[in-house]
Amino acid sequence: MSGKVYFSVTMSLDGFMAPDDVPAEDLFTPKGRNDPRVRRWMTKWSELQAWLFPTRFFRENLGFGEGGEEGLDNDVARATFERTGASIMGRRMFDAGELSWPEDAPFHTPVFVLTHAPREPWVRKGGTTFHFVDDGIDSALDRAREAAGNRDVRISGGADTIQQYLDKGLIDEFSITLAPVLFGSGRRLFDRIDADRLALEQVRSDGSSRVTHLTYRVGKR
Amino acid sequence: MSGKVYFSVTMSLDGFMAPDDVPAEDLFTPKGRNDPRVRRWMTKWSELQAWLFPTRFFRENLGFGEGGEEGLDNDVARATFERTGASIMGRRMFDAGELSWPEDAPFHTPVFVLTHAPREPWVRKGGTTFHFVDDGIDSALDRAREAAGNRDVRISGGADTIQQYLDKGLIDEFSITLAPVLFGSGRRLFDRIDADRLALEQVRSDGSSRVTHLTYRVGKR
Repeated sequence: MSGKVYFSVTMSLDGFMAPDDVPAEDLFTPKGRNDPRVRRWMTKWSELQAWLFPTRFFRENLGFGEGGEEGLDNDVARATFERTGASIMGRRMFDAGELSWPEDAPFHTPVFVLTHAPREPWVRKGGTTFHFVDDGIDSALDRAREAAGNRDVRISGGADTIQQYLDKGLIDEFSITLAPVLFGSGRRLFDRIDADRLALEQVRSDGSSRVTHLTYRVGKR
Repeated sequence: MSGKVYFSVTMSLDGFMAPDDVPAEDLFTPKGRNDPRVRRWMTKWSELQAWLFPTRFFRENLGFGEGGEEGLDNDVARATFERTGASIMGRRMFDAGELSWPEDAPFHTPVFVLTHAPREPWVRKGGTTFHFVDDGIDSALDRAREAAGNRDVRISGGADTIQQYLDKGLIDEFSITLAPVLFGSGRRLFDRIDADRLALEQVRSDGSSRVTHLTYRVGKR
């Protein structure tokens, strides 16, 4: 019995899951951080993810130590982590993460990175191994399903990667944490998808004091 | 003590409050209804508003007779109606409505229509009077506030009109009914707004079996 294929992202009320692109390598270097465009990216990203940072789970998982808030936001963050047996991500997301994740990377499962450049698996402390897949999204999904066992496969991001899986009808359900922020521009979660082929059913809707956690089942039509 | 200025709309999960424009007059004529573009508009609009049609309030207010569902969706629809002492709408929304509202138009309050073409007030049965305002959105709001007394002023739509009021900092709060549909294209609720100037606070989040009802307070920054 294999698990579901899902994604879970935080989205601004106007539909963005990330600010306008800046070079990934600029996000995590002292030089980059003095660039106004990069500072703006950081500010907007932090506003979007503001619900997550105070949670106990987030602090634990990034190694920030004890403490943090309990409650719905924390439960959602923890449940998302616990259901996931393997993740798939695009190259750009990996590139940014490679520069920023702690040595004990926050996945603790196999992660399949879509890339055109073959590379040996990269083993991190704590159970995260990054595998580089250069033969397409179906192959990555096959490998992730096998690695996940009866847990779920998470399409981690970015938006491009999620859209590719969604458009191919490979997503069973998805969760959106809807944040009370407006971006005005950036990377849209739903972009270049064939909306006419997707039928959604709301299966969960829970508001915390900060955000709303939504889950939809995806059908075809 | 004057009321709040607000808007309340149904939005698709990908941020649209209406499908791609079709000529308003085509929506409600037999000829128009045979046009595939118009049929598509009708289908998408109906999917977006599907939560509303079965409610008892909607049936009552449009004169469809007794019956209909009670519950959260119905309560939200009724409360939106009851809080509203006057409405403001753009010309295009009026043009479509003029062709489709029953003689006993569904507002039952004064409605201020933004237009460039002066016209005498149009009095309908049941308390709705349309006033045509050709000297700008501030003037329309002043008149609507006065007409509303201590009830609230609703910016009914369309998207352009809402965006003009939002961008001028004239909206106190807004409600979105988030529907589990994807449009792919159409009229975005949040478009051409200066997102950096608006600070939102989520003040309500309630999911029904079909949709999620959200309310945000608008601050400046």
